[in-house]
Amino acid sequence: MSILESIQSSADVKKLRQDQLEPLCEELREFIIQNVSQTGGHLSSNLGTVELTVALHRVYDSSVDRIIFDVGHQSYSHKILTGRRDRFDSLRQYKGISGFPKPYEAPDDAFIAGHASNSVSVALGMARARTLRHENYQVVAVIGDGAMTGGLAFEGLTNAAASGEPMVVILNDNNMSISENVGGTVSMLQTMRAKPGYINFKRWYRDVFTRLPALYRFNHKIKEWLKARLLSENMFSEMGFNYLGPVDGHDLEKLETAIRYAKEINGPVLLHVLTKKGKGCEYTEKDPERYHGVSAFDPQTGAMPVSAPCFSSVFGEALCTLAEEDERVVAITAAMAAGTGLDSFAAKYPERFFDVGIAEGHAVAMAGGMAKQGLRPVFAVYSSFLQRGYDMLIHDVGLQKLHAVFAVDRAGLVGNDGETHHGVLDLDYLSAVPGMRIWCPASFEELRQMLRHAVEDENGPVAIRYPRGGEGRYQAASLEQELAVREGGDLTIVCYGIMVNTALDAADRLAEQGVSAEIVKLGCVTPNTFGLCMRSLNKTGRLLVAEDVCAAGCVGERLLAEAGLQGVKLRQAKLINLGDGLVTHGSVPELMKLCGLDAASLAAAAQELINGERV
Amino acid sequence: MSILESIQSSADVKKLRQDQLEPLCEELREFIIQNVSQTGGHLSSNLGTVELTVALHRVYDSSVDRIIFDVGHQSYSHKILTGRRDRFDSLRQYKGISGFPKPYEAPDDAFIAGHASNSVSVALGMARARTLRHENYQVVAVIGDGAMTGGLAFEGLTNAAASGEPMVVILNDNNMSISENVGGTVSMLQTMRAKPGYINFKRWYRDVFTRLPALYRFNHKIKEWLKARLLSENMFSEMGFNYLGPVDGHDLEKLETAIRYAKEINGPVLLHVLTKKGKGCEYTEKDPERYHGVSAFDPQTGAMPVSAPCFSSVFGEALCTLAEEDERVVAITAAMAAGTGLDSFAAKYPERFFDVGIAEGHAVAMAGGMAKQGLRPVFAVYSSFLQRGYDMLIHDVGLQKLHAVFAVDRAGLVGNDGETHHGVLDLDYLSAVPGMRIWCPASFEELRQMLRHAVEDENGPVAIRYPRGGEGRYQAASLEQELAVREGGDLTIVCYGIMVNTALDAADRLAEQGVSAEIVKLGCVTPNTFGLCMRSLNKTGRLLVAEDVCAAGCVGERLLAEAGLQGVKLRQAKLINLGDGLVTHGSVPELMKLCGLDAASLAAAAQELINGERV
Repeated sequence: MSILESIQSSADVKKLRQDQLEPLCEELREFIIQNVSQTGGHLSSNLGTVELTVALHRVYDSSVDRIIFDVGHQSYSHKILTGRRDRFDSLRQYKGISGFPKPYEAPDDAFIAGHASNSVSVALGMARARTLRHENYQVVAVIGDGAMTGGLAFEGLTNAAASGEPMVVILNDNNMSISENVGGTVSMLQTMRAKPGYINFKRWYRDVFTRLPALYRFNHKIKEWLKARLLSENMFSEMGFNYLGPVDGHDLEKLETAIRYAKEINGPVLLHVLTKKGKGCEYTEKDPERYHGVSAFDPQTGAMPVSAPCFSSVFGEALCTLAEEDERVVAITAAMAAGTGLDSFAAKYPERFFDVGIAEGHAVAMAGGMAKQGLRPVFAVYSSFLQRGYDMLIHDVGLQKLHAVFAVDRAGLVGNDGETHHGVLDLDYLSAVPGMRIWCPASFEELRQMLRHAVEDENGPVAIRYPRGGEGRYQAASLEQELAVREGGDLTIVCYGIMVNTALDAADRLAEQGVSAEIVKLGCVTPNTFGLCMRSLNKTGRLLVAEDVCAAGCVGERLLAEAGLQGVKLRQAKLINLGDGLVTHGSVPELMKLCGLDAASLAAAAQELINGERV
Repeated sequence: MSILESIQSSADVKKLRQDQLEPLCEELREFIIQNVSQTGGHLSSNLGTVELTVALHRVYDSSVDRIIFDVGHQSYSHKILTGRRDRFDSLRQYKGISGFPKPYEAPDDAFIAGHASNSVSVALGMARARTLRHENYQVVAVIGDGAMTGGLAFEGLTNAAASGEPMVVILNDNNMSISENVGGTVSMLQTMRAKPGYINFKRWYRDVFTRLPALYRFNHKIKEWLKARLLSENMFSEMGFNYLGPVDGHDLEKLETAIRYAKEINGPVLLHVLTKKGKGCEYTEKDPERYHGVSAFDPQTGAMPVSAPCFSSVFGEALCTLAEEDERVVAITAAMAAGTGLDSFAAKYPERFFDVGIAEGHAVAMAGGMAKQGLRPVFAVYSSFLQRGYDMLIHDVGLQKLHAVFAVDRAGLVGNDGETHHGVLDLDYLSAVPGMRIWCPASFEELRQMLRHAVEDENGPVAIRYPRGGEGRYQAASLEQELAVREGGDLTIVCYGIMVNTALDAADRLAEQGVSAEIVKLGCVTPNTFGLCMRSLNKTGRLLVAEDVCAAGCVGERLLAEAGLQGVKLRQAKLINLGDGLVTHGSVPELMKLCGLDAASLAAAAQELINGERV
């Protein structure tokens, strides 16, 4: 039996002899590479945090202590060590293990993760709850230097530092997550890395004072005097943190020692750990960014299948064309240059490309400033991450109706990353931005045309929302607000974006059953007074709206309201959407079926509508 | 003629002799006090920035250079100096001068302001636009230490520091905006205040090197060597800013000199200015917080009228009662203890009261952590500021359906603060949070009951939204989701919150005209399947929904959609709301009338509905 097979919990990790720890880490790495090469997932960040995770479980008990992983894509070792090894081959698959911490999956997962920079805030809330309720557990936040660029982390850190609450923030600094042009935080961290070791002083300090508790209590001034002489200050210590580090994040003994010290300090601690992203595997060490988030690959060589064209890559190419024609066009990303297809733009127009780090709010406000002064900024961002920029969309763009373009990628269901990553709210929250127009391309060519229109012809805030992945059977293109892509007399199916493919499939099935469906595809969902839809409904009297967004503020609701205001008489209507938007992980087709949004379900819903007719 | 009367622009300020500047500042202060004592507005922050504003106009030309005021409530001197003195008695009044920068009011107002911490991001966007478009103007952000606690400011600062863009961030540090328990940023700033003057060194440095341009270009190493010896590092310089300061913000000569230096540095500069909030007036210097935002008062003595009970004060008292009964109840504010009525709670339960500074996102995420570990957090926050916590509402509360309570104050039209402060989006954005319930008290007693219900009986995220100001004729209380507060047969008026008062008045008018209106008041707007409304509509066939929120995602839309789904036949329907939500400043009754939401307009709309009947 391997060491790994003997581990089901923090308690089991604690039972291991020191000489079993390195082999355990090796087994973990091998296990992760083998699994992720099959299932896809986050590779480099998990390989970089193997020792850190083992050390955490040596010191803490994750069933009681609260370990908050920031972003959470680095939690694989944690999951494997806490009873989920056997099911780990189902990682990110439908009904399998989630790629992110999920309290419903195991009590060892202390909190939801998926969006960056929240861990310190959550940990502080937990630490305060612990203290006020007189309970006895430890609280730890594990946050990477990438997530540290997010303003939310700064808000959490300043408040935690001032709180005096005993809690530990582990800064997992791999000097990787941020590209060079996001240097503010990086530059601070680099200064700190160069500082002399602190641990040895701390050890001496603690050894002396724990033996003399009275002195310990009365030594504040002495401590400050010592600190001022022995330790150079940095941002964290100036905030009020007990700063420890930096510590080698791959030296198990030092790590465990440092974490034990951190745990024993009666106040907020920042433990600075240096790790190497992709550690322990030749190809990931060489190019950790390439293996940050991957689909299935060859575990021996690291070879990955060639990726097919997708909406993101089409967007990136189309934006390069526009940039060539119009000098005012600039591109913004929040640490997602590759994911949003902007890497070619970055290479071609480096002076017009701005990667602001994980800072979506700043990206939106900066785009507002750019637009006000005559640039044409295009911010490419995942739908669920743009939620961070909600207020800035309103305040810094909408109120002045500035011409900024939002390329909202990963709109709709994203699949294996699950509920934190589905882009199911943008349609609702973008529609409330004053002056916002929302275009929904259904094909690659439509994305090209809509992007050109948005950048060159519009004169206010514009969003173009498109999904992860590629196009389907519908490959035509139109800039019409509404378009009848199929005519019929029995019912009207309204859809937008790639849902048009499913609607066409459903209509084919219905035709076989003798039902004639008319399909109206919306090109622009906001604003839209649905004139063509109303004419179609006057003809058919039956409405089916199919959307892969949450129910609140969905297009179907608006369409029905408009029908009510215009006095359009409906015999039957049904809205199919994602309800509260909490959709699990799995492949997109599996999830679409689960939500009643596959062709068979749509056809069945249409039949039900016709059969269940009110008199 | 006073000096002030001779000033219409930056150019006029530049023409003044040095000995005219102090008298100008005195005149400005007197003018501000006299005006604000009549109109109400922000007093202390404007008295604190008189010299800073004059110095800015000595160095910059606000008609060309872009001066971005953070939050913007400190922009009165700027407005008075740039052509708006004559109309300044209309400050914050309907059709008068706005209390915040507004580009539509004057080209000297570079950008919208109202929400904190955006200025550095906006300024960076403008600086980048200036550089890319080869234009020749300066960009300056003026940000207070309060706004500095917002994560957005940190995101902007790190990116600006790394950008290398010539721009100046003026940190207006009055050591006031943050309460003591928000010490992270404060503690850093305090360290900096103690540092020796920097300006003198800088002056020498520049004098030497500007005379020797070749040396200037090749002196990077020398400069670094000098800096390392003469200047202690701080967070800003570690980020990459050229840090200047601290400078006395009431010493005009030093200020002007410092700003000139800052302007000439070819890169990002942070100029640290120390000011005294409320400077130059006895009562505001004594208690600057009391005079931060004021209604009309006595300019001689500073005496203010006794404030009447309002929803905020009722909330604060009610929460104290609940806290007495339940130890798990804790209160959170984002730098708005007095405004949200939490000051009595803070005094009574200091260990259960958390002021996190201007950091709404952190407040929400921390509430999530608290709720997960068994506390009952209540976050009291203004509707339009909670927009900053949108993603955290979804990710850190909604996804796990945690029991956190959001006391959403200033919901609906707030009046004189205008478009940046109206709470017209919360109903839409809160409705999309998984599991969220939204209660809308229409009276003080209803607020008490709903708060108790939300804290003690609910088991997931809950929001209670209530307006600025007091209750009206409706003073009953009910926890019903829907309640017929008046019966009638001709049409159904649906409303919630204090709109019930207007609806009752409108129904009285209609009764005089022989029309019998039924009023359904919604207690809980989300979730709600509108059973009573549908029964009422089956009776009357006519629907009028009156709401003081924006159109996107309004309740009327949902109600009409539900009617469509349930096959309820409507003869006529009309939704009255705030459209895109861009409502100007003025008194609430004026704005309500402007938007067709006063009793006369509602009655007229009802009559129109009946007269314009479709056949």
